[in-house]
Amino acid sequence: MTRAVLVLNAGSSSLKVALFDAGGERLLARGQADRIGPEGGLQLQDAQGAPLPAPAAAASHQAALAGAIAGFRAGLPGLELIAVGHRVVHGGDAFTGPVAVTPAVLAQLEALSPLAPLHQPHNLAGIRAAMAEFPGVPQIACFDTAFHRSHPWVNDVFALPREFYDQGVRRYGFHGLSYDHVTGELARLAPHLWEGRVVIAHLGNGASMCAVQRGRSVASTMGFSALDGLPMGTRCGQIDPGVILYLMDQRGMTAAAIADLLYRRSGLLGLSGVSNDMRVLEASDNPDAARAIDHFVFRCQREVGAMAAALGGIDALVFCGGIGEHSTLVRARICERLGWMGIELDHSRNAAHATVISSDLARTTVMVVPTDEERVIARAARAVLAGGAPV
Amino acid sequence: MTRAVLVLNAGSSSLKVALFDAGGERLLARGQADRIGPEGGLQLQDAQGAPLPAPAAAASHQAALAGAIAGFRAGLPGLELIAVGHRVVHGGDAFTGPVAVTPAVLAQLEALSPLAPLHQPHNLAGIRAAMAEFPGVPQIACFDTAFHRSHPWVNDVFALPREFYDQGVRRYGFHGLSYDHVTGELARLAPHLWEGRVVIAHLGNGASMCAVQRGRSVASTMGFSALDGLPMGTRCGQIDPGVILYLMDQRGMTAAAIADLLYRRSGLLGLSGVSNDMRVLEASDNPDAARAIDHFVFRCQREVGAMAAALGGIDALVFCGGIGEHSTLVRARICERLGWMGIELDHSRNAAHATVISSDLARTTVMVVPTDEERVIARAARAVLAGGAPV
Repeated sequence: MTRAVLVLNAGSSSLKVALFDAGGERLLARGQADRIGPEGGLQLQDAQGAPLPAPAAAASHQAALAGAIAGFRAGLPGLELIAVGHRVVHGGDAFTGPVAVTPAVLAQLEALSPLAPLHQPHNLAGIRAAMAEFPGVPQIACFDTAFHRSHPWVNDVFALPREFYDQGVRRYGFHGLSYDHVTGELARLAPHLWEGRVVIAHLGNGASMCAVQRGRSVASTMGFSALDGLPMGTRCGQIDPGVILYLMDQRGMTAAAIADLLYRRSGLLGLSGVSNDMRVLEASDNPDAARAIDHFVFRCQREVGAMAAALGGIDALVFCGGIGEHSTLVRARICERLGWMGIELDHSRNAAHATVISSDLARTTVMVVPTDEERVIARAARAVLAGGAPV
Repeated sequence: MTRAVLVLNAGSSSLKVALFDAGGERLLARGQADRIGPEGGLQLQDAQGAPLPAPAAAASHQAALAGAIAGFRAGLPGLELIAVGHRVVHGGDAFTGPVAVTPAVLAQLEALSPLAPLHQPHNLAGIRAAMAEFPGVPQIACFDTAFHRSHPWVNDVFALPREFYDQGVRRYGFHGLSYDHVTGELARLAPHLWEGRVVIAHLGNGASMCAVQRGRSVASTMGFSALDGLPMGTRCGQIDPGVILYLMDQRGMTAAAIADLLYRRSGLLGLSGVSNDMRVLEASDNPDAARAIDHFVFRCQREVGAMAAALGGIDALVFCGGIGEHSTLVRARICERLGWMGIELDHSRNAAHATVISSDLARTTVMVVPTDEERVIARAARAVLAGGAPV
């Protein structure tokens, strides 16, 4: 018999699954369904990355989940799920750590959907699919916001009348599962830096930065929703509130039309007119693609300065996320104007995606630390099951 | 005969006037009308600050203007106005310097009112009052946005679809008349710093920061409207666009109600529940007043880091504006966590509001440079009259 924790990360048309041992530490298998619907497909891999047989189709999240489990069972006879851990983007101010899902919890999380319309409804659909597929198995929700609940008040509050903060209008911060993993890795790899002032740049299709010291989040570029801060694949990042008033007032746009603009048609895609994918932009010879990268790089530099200010200085800059882990160009471009902060890259290390990519003599260490949100979820699910505090 | 340039800065219920000699350099007299309306009052002073007789009432902007001129004429026989210079907050992308007001210009400026509803309509009402009072005298509009038109594209653009930028949705920046004056003073007082990387903090009831090098604005915390960036007396500063969507969608607020919230009920006033005035907050023993100051200070620190990043470092931090020039406490609080940027105050200099308030050994110079937007306007009006470029 193989007792295991299943981890689910459900997006609008994708489902990522990962199977860990009962301790939440050892990866057993993983899989991903993309373009869920009539043309959807599912791929499974064992822990070494070798393909596992899987049904080709993924007509729905439920079907993709059933297909993945069937594939895993074929390779792992006697597979018994002891828990399912879920990535949930928004835990509001109520959830400061992982929680076992009850109908009441699910209702609370549904109420937060308007704050993360691109993610939250799909995350919750994943929970419902897993409840239907595995009745009786504990479902554990893990939140991208929870890691940031240690922020000082000054970093969380907007300069609105005080009652708005009390009513939940505050800077929540996101990508907390990623930051949680990366700070854990930092404690292992470089404990002296973990003690120091660390800016972590999670740069992917979603992007944010976090100011961390001793494993505690002090500030983040992301805010109330997943729109704020850095420009992203299709999201605008920081934007003057006057722009929204102008779109409503002068252009007669509805809230739904503005949300569609800011969540789905802005960011790198909107600026370049080419793609939301940094790899495509880097390979493009369209000058608008290059200009979109220029803007992304500038905003990243700007926010490294802002996050360092929140920490009173900087000892390490850590890149993670799809762009942060894989784009030699973007890392080099961001760092090339940060010499004033003691940052100086070793370009051969950077090209090799080494763990430490700064030069030996640089005052500030620059690192690449691959993130692993699924492992954080597996550990947290295990900890909730055991009745203990999350790791 | 005294040939003179009159400078007007018209707010919603206030009118500041200043009279300069024909060269636009020497102040002859000044005045201020407050609470314009049934209870409005007008006060005039000569160049030395001694009171001049003035009518006590200021029932309207027009009446305040007529009263001021009558008072000035009494003290300066044969006064002849050669131009009236106006502060206009928003010049959009069309106006990169001061301009003589024509009906066509006035129409262009009216179209920008939605971008600065607290200021632009009143600025334009001041122009109209002066046209009626002084027919035939050239009216020169000077813009708070013009100084920032040298920004690189990456600093001006929002990560929206490209056509929005072309249609004027961009980060204009404000307080440009103040930054213009302060950079001019810096060139005079400390030419080696003028050459360097300078962050200017204009902190008043409105507040922003500007990154300047060699007199050119490189970046600003303010954006499309006068709402963005630092929290202000009653304005929110930077806020997640998701908050606006939430207020529309979940609270059913109209654009007008949201504008009222963000422009008039937020900032220091909203956070403290006490006052929009930093002097009142500093004197208050209400803990919410102290917390509002804490937040203001944090956001200022954060944006000094961001502006330094835009410059690739920092050689000088210059305070101006009502808070910047007069609050020993706020300057000390902002600087106390900026040691990592080479900033270290000399507290007795700071208490004395000296021009240089950093310690002699600090790597980064911190200065207090009183701003004088009226002098910039007088000079610019003179230059436009002479057909030359603005100073």
